Amino acid sequence: MAQDDNIYYTRGMEVPETPEPGATPEFWEKTAVVGKPSPRVDGYERLSGTAVYPSDIKLPNMIYGAILRCPHPNARVKKLDAGRARKMPGVRAVITGDSDAAKNLKWRYDDFTTPLFDPHCRFEGEAVAAVAADTPYQARDALAAIHVEYEVLPHLADHDRALDENAPKVHETGNLVGKDEYSRGDVQKGFARADTVVERTYNTQCELHTPMELHGCVANWDGDRLTIWESSQGVYAVQSTISEVLDLPFSRVRVIGHYMGGGFGSKLQPGKYTVLAALLARQAARPVKMILTREETYLSVGNRPASTMHVKAGMRSDGTLTALDFRCTGPSGAYPAGGTSLMDWLVRDLYQCDNVSCRSNDVYINAGPARPFRAPGHPQGSWALEQMIDELAGKTGMDPVDLRLKNIPEISQARGRMPYTTTGLARCIREGAEKFGWKDAVKKARQHNQSNGHVKHGAGMAACLWIAGGGGQPSTVVIRLFRDGSVNLNMGASDIGTGTKTIMALVAAEELGVRPEMIQIEHADTGTTQYATPSGGSKTVPTEAPTVRNAAVEVKRRVLEMASGDLGVPAEDLDYKGAEIVSRSDKDKRIRVTEVSRLKKRGVVVGVGYRGPNPAGKTVNPFGAQFCELEVNQKTGEIRILRFVAAHDSGRVMNRLTYDNQVFGGIVMGIGFGLTEFRQLDARQTGKLCNRNWHDYKLPTALDVPADMESLPIEIDDPEANNTGAKGLGEPVTIPTAPAIANALYMATGIRFTRAPVTPLEVRRHLDLQKEG
Amino acid sequence: MAQDDNIYYTRGMEVPETPEPGATPEFWEKTAVVGKPSPRVDGYERLSGTAVYPSDIKLPNMIYGAILRCPHPNARVKKLDAGRARKMPGVRAVITGDSDAAKNLKWRYDDFTTPLFDPHCRFEGEAVAAVAADTPYQARDALAAIHVEYEVLPHLADHDRALDENAPKVHETGNLVGKDEYSRGDVQKGFARADTVVERTYNTQCELHTPMELHGCVANWDGDRLTIWESSQGVYAVQSTISEVLDLPFSRVRVIGHYMGGGFGSKLQPGKYTVLAALLARQAARPVKMILTREETYLSVGNRPASTMHVKAGMRSDGTLTALDFRCTGPSGAYPAGGTSLMDWLVRDLYQCDNVSCRSNDVYINAGPARPFRAPGHPQGSWALEQMIDELAGKTGMDPVDLRLKNIPEISQARGRMPYTTTGLARCIREGAEKFGWKDAVKKARQHNQSNGHVKHGAGMAACLWIAGGGGQPSTVVIRLFRDGSVNLNMGASDIGTGTKTIMALVAAEELGVRPEMIQIEHADTGTTQYATPSGGSKTVPTEAPTVRNAAVEVKRRVLEMASGDLGVPAEDLDYKGAEIVSRSDKDKRIRVTEVSRLKKRGVVVGVGYRGPNPAGKTVNPFGAQFCELEVNQKTGEIRILRFVAAHDSGRVMNRLTYDNQVFGGIVMGIGFGLTEFRQLDARQTGKLCNRNWHDYKLPTALDVPADMESLPIEIDDPEANNTGAKGLGEPVTIPTAPAIANALYMATGIRFTRAPVTPLEVRRHLDLQKEG
Repeated sequence: MAQDDNIYYTRGMEVPETPEPGATPEFWEKTAVVGKPSPRVDGYERLSGTAVYPSDIKLPNMIYGAILRCPHPNARVKKLDAGRARKMPGVRAVITGDSDAAKNLKWRYDDFTTPLFDPHCRFEGEAVAAVAADTPYQARDALAAIHVEYEVLPHLADHDRALDENAPKVHETGNLVGKDEYSRGDVQKGFARADTVVERTYNTQCELHTPMELHGCVANWDGDRLTIWESSQGVYAVQSTISEVLDLPFSRVRVIGHYMGGGFGSKLQPGKYTVLAALLARQAARPVKMILTREETYLSVGNRPASTMHVKAGMRSDGTLTALDFRCTGPSGAYPAGGTSLMDWLVRDLYQCDNVSCRSNDVYINAGPARPFRAPGHPQGSWALEQMIDELAGKTGMDPVDLRLKNIPEISQARGRMPYTTTGLARCIREGAEKFGWKDAVKKARQHNQSNGHVKHGAGMAACLWIAGGGGQPSTVVIRLFRDGSVNLNMGASDIGTGTKTIMALVAAEELGVRPEMIQIEHADTGTTQYATPSGGSKTVPTEAPTVRNAAVEVKRRVLEMASGDLGVPAEDLDYKGAEIVSRSDKDKRIRVTEVSRLKKRGVVVGVGYRGPNPAGKTVNPFGAQFCELEVNQKTGEIRILRFVAAHDSGRVMNRLTYDNQVFGGIVMGIGFGLTEFRQLDARQTGKLCNRNWHDYKLPTALDVPADMESLPIEIDDPEANNTGAKGLGEPVTIPTAPAIANALYMATGIRFTRAPVTPLEVRRHLDLQKEG
Repeated sequence: MAQDDNIYYTRGMEVPETPEPGATPEFWEKTAVVGKPSPRVDGYERLSGTAVYPSDIKLPNMIYGAILRCPHPNARVKKLDAGRARKMPGVRAVITGDSDAAKNLKWRYDDFTTPLFDPHCRFEGEAVAAVAADTPYQARDALAAIHVEYEVLPHLADHDRALDENAPKVHETGNLVGKDEYSRGDVQKGFARADTVVERTYNTQCELHTPMELHGCVANWDGDRLTIWESSQGVYAVQSTISEVLDLPFSRVRVIGHYMGGGFGSKLQPGKYTVLAALLARQAARPVKMILTREETYLSVGNRPASTMHVKAGMRSDGTLTALDFRCTGPSGAYPAGGTSLMDWLVRDLYQCDNVSCRSNDVYINAGPARPFRAPGHPQGSWALEQMIDELAGKTGMDPVDLRLKNIPEISQARGRMPYTTTGLARCIREGAEKFGWKDAVKKARQHNQSNGHVKHGAGMAACLWIAGGGGQPSTVVIRLFRDGSVNLNMGASDIGTGTKTIMALVAAEELGVRPEMIQIEHADTGTTQYATPSGGSKTVPTEAPTVRNAAVEVKRRVLEMASGDLGVPAEDLDYKGAEIVSRSDKDKRIRVTEVSRLKKRGVVVGVGYRGPNPAGKTVNPFGAQFCELEVNQKTGEIRILRFVAAHDSGRVMNRLTYDNQVFGGIVMGIGFGLTEFRQLDARQTGKLCNRNWHDYKLPTALDVPADMESLPIEIDDPEANNTGAKGLGEPVTIPTAPAIANALYMATGIRFTRAPVTPLEVRRHLDLQKEG
């Protein structure tokens, strides 16, 4: 049996002292593996292609499902004839609204419960029928053979028109999903006290979810037990929805999501496609693979809703913010999904301001429902607020860095003045600016722009916080230590591509003193792994890592108890030192973990860990600031981003490698939001989606992204947040990117680009207007 | 969400009171589902064919392995050329003793460690090389293309010759594996006190393991992680052996054994084939399926060793046993595997006797290693002892039932007079005889035999105990209660076809008050399920069921704690009543389990259960007695078994349906042992196996088994044994069958058939001798 230190244990690492058994484990003072740059534990599988994603699943006798979708943004199914489809070669199952399998089933949107196949289709892409056939091609051919007669109804595509009296009604109840209001202080008095008041309207376009792996699943029945392999951020969320729709006990619905190719919020919940795959599989008595096309996902699986935001801000000449007034309208799509929610959070809470008023209208339009999209609402709100701050700075001649530093809160004003466990906002801005060379960059750009060249330079920055992060209950993790010293870690959370598994391996490795490679992880399977909430909200690491640590502490406690028998020393006197257990009072009393006799006999020690509670009366949030330098070609309107510096306070850095990956990925996505991505609906005529593929819907590519991106972790010990000090990183990194770019654009061109994305066409249009004006 | 009592909860059942939190749960006084006849929870899967056994596994790109085996019982590989095989179509991997992949690997037999491919092959069927190819046929063709030159050495096939001076040496160390000696009292004095002394030699032949599913596995690598689907009785045993042979951490070897088609002891450990499958898979970079042929399993995966037993017994005229002397020789095959072990246990412990002496020689022969075979040693020893008791009864004119009842011990004499928690031996004999109508049957048979017909009748009986059973530590089980009230049960134990999963579902159902169908079981997977020892020794239920119960009790404790918050009542005052939690002091304070708010919020409650210790100073054993009626055709030698009654004390009956299955299956296997099955080696000439298929190796078929088999559980409350009272059933049921038949044969023919199996040929031979004599 391999028991060599070199293979099993982290050589030379100083393992922290074990906490008293039962006591809350203390904050790690010094780590051996956590925080160091570590390659992913599943890197080989991911790179070699042996990692099996749901779209790779291949089961014996598997057939392929496909969904017929309504081609109109608003239409009523008058007649549907699937007779010809049923007779097509290879077709094994056809389900329509009339089918016994489907006719009593309901689908629950956030507020509405509709028939699974609702004859009134309120968005282009709503499901109308489904088939399964031996090949995907036969399934598509069968869809084409289904004859549907639609009554096409007037549609609403523009959210700004939603509340007009004569606008088409998306639902009988009208087009208003809801209003959200917030205020503190008195904005009128605030504006009265201001030396400078600025007012401006900002717009962001709808951004479509584009994970690399398409949405989809494989469904298989064993008698009355359903197994689903789903590309998901949360297998338990899929389990509960499917159980409820199909009226099955949770225990009979097993959802597996080992690998998944990105979700960004659009895979927090299952879609109708999962139910349809299950129904088709039951009808055909075969496993059914149902992977959507990119076009289908663009139509139906979610988006970051557009926004129309009006901001009015007041400031005294010393830089004190006296009032912020925010009005916003945003669409949920055809079904409520929190269209405007969180758009105002940064206005409420990022900067010190006594008088704030926010009013948001969430409205329906005839388009696919919105879903959470990396930092829901925040990039939109940031686009408005952070440009406004820049404009205020400009108006008064203050440096935007200094203006922000002037208004740093130590407490969450919007949460009843609850203190943050830690806030690195000031340090992110200050140290980020230093790293970036802010003053020099501004000076250099201004100098450059005095020349007559058509390429202009700009530097811009923006700051942020993220409302969530911090994590919390519930979470359970089971760690098993095998008698040879290797470890199996069992958790329910999904690794949505961010390196969660690797971080959990590091945490277990840190606590147990074994090498991360010795830790095998089983995860994201409702049948065999522990309960976890979906991976999202930048809360996966702050939720799961403390739980993993607690499970590892419990394993150690049990092993110490066992070793106590071998050494004749009370467990409280023993210390766990990686490969060995040593008596504190008599250093000669020591035993290798793998030699502990009860462990050898039992084969395995099990430790169960639960997530502890969050700190009472405090709030845990991550903060950040990003700095951008760019050039604008005034002839072509093209924007070239030269470099980015991103300073983020997310508490403890768990793995420097995946930390930086997250930061760079967030910037890339922010560039897409600011410069390239938008859903183009044919609002005037058909209401249909115009850019439904990667050619027409422009994602940032390698050429759109600067080679020079720097990540500067602002690491502040936060033992109060949780027992690992991690606060969550995934979402904040994409929030301030677009306004930093917009602010740099202003420096380069003197134009406030208030409408995102800022495409070359938009740049040229504004330059033309500028020339004319 | 389905929350109907009718679906989720056992209607009308009286749920036992919950024990005080933390206290040892009390013995169930009254059960709702445990003990009732319940169909298997996986019955649908097993019958419909959707149950995936290792031999059903089909992975993308999977190829097929095959093993070249030595065709001689003793030979040295002089030269091996696999050059041609490597070039055969479809061949993707070839491994020989010279291959880098294999040359440093060791295989550990019980006492010897040899190279994986040992050039000295000591039994027919020893592995010499292995290949993997696109199809099984190509793999077999490749084997045929490997050229091997053997130096054929003299062989030893007859264990009775093993210790002869001029016998061929199986190992350089000689042919004696070891001696086992036991004595108490003074046999010489015992014989001196006896009124009757009988002495006789008994033989049993080697019986081959014949599980329905062949031995085999599928091996697949993901980087440096190996996954094995193995037809196994104990996934953790496979994990540790493979980890050790391949020098991998346990955490990197995942062994899955969800369904398996029988083992009977021969699948307690992996074979070389599992290692070879893993090596071939690594070399070919593809999954490899390696399923042995029946011929290969007959040669190499185990057997019940033959025996030559000499018994001398002394008895006073009142039926008191005064002395038992037992001498035995049995073969381990070419490598030690406990050939004679436990053959003497019944002599030592079944009946009250003050003077006992046992001496056993375990020897090598050139044949496949023995392995545990359902009740190792016991059917052999029973064949001798129970015929001897019958003969003693005959000598003194006592009824064999009465003679046995005269000598019932309440304590384990061979274990230092340690008391049994319970012994039902006397009740099994007495109540079994009653059920069978023993006295009438004997009278009727004797009457019938006075006629001149050539078909003679006989009745016979035999009793037994099984040394093991009772179960014990270690075992861990995790139960998860979902918020909708359904349950997931996670355990490491294999269900080797005996219905273990069903019994565990019943135990969890009993404790939690939910219907067994609501309980989904995950099991036998080192990657995702808890640690368990292999399923064998009739200890699976007594080991795992108490653990399951403890886990369920822990779930209840946690739910009560949660409900305490909702009801404003301390947890200690709450009772768990199936679907509801009710306050003991105020029956109006009640809440549905599915409405407990912390459960709703957390989604899942987890309970971990561990197996408690066994009772100190006591022994837990199952007992039994079987009764047989048969007829013998004196012209053809054919034996027709007319009926069997089997009375067994295995403590609590957990599931009456699978209980009876076990009993009937044990009798069938005992019939094979007594009448039809034997390994025929060509001892005189080649030493090779002659009957290597189901045509030549005779298993009992439907026609050999009586339609009239009755199972009579002797159910004695045994709260000391463990918290379910189950003592283990699988093995005792096959122990007394063959001697009961032999004793009935004696009544029918007046002939003592001392050599098993008693084939028609053997009957005719003895009848001829009888006539001559």
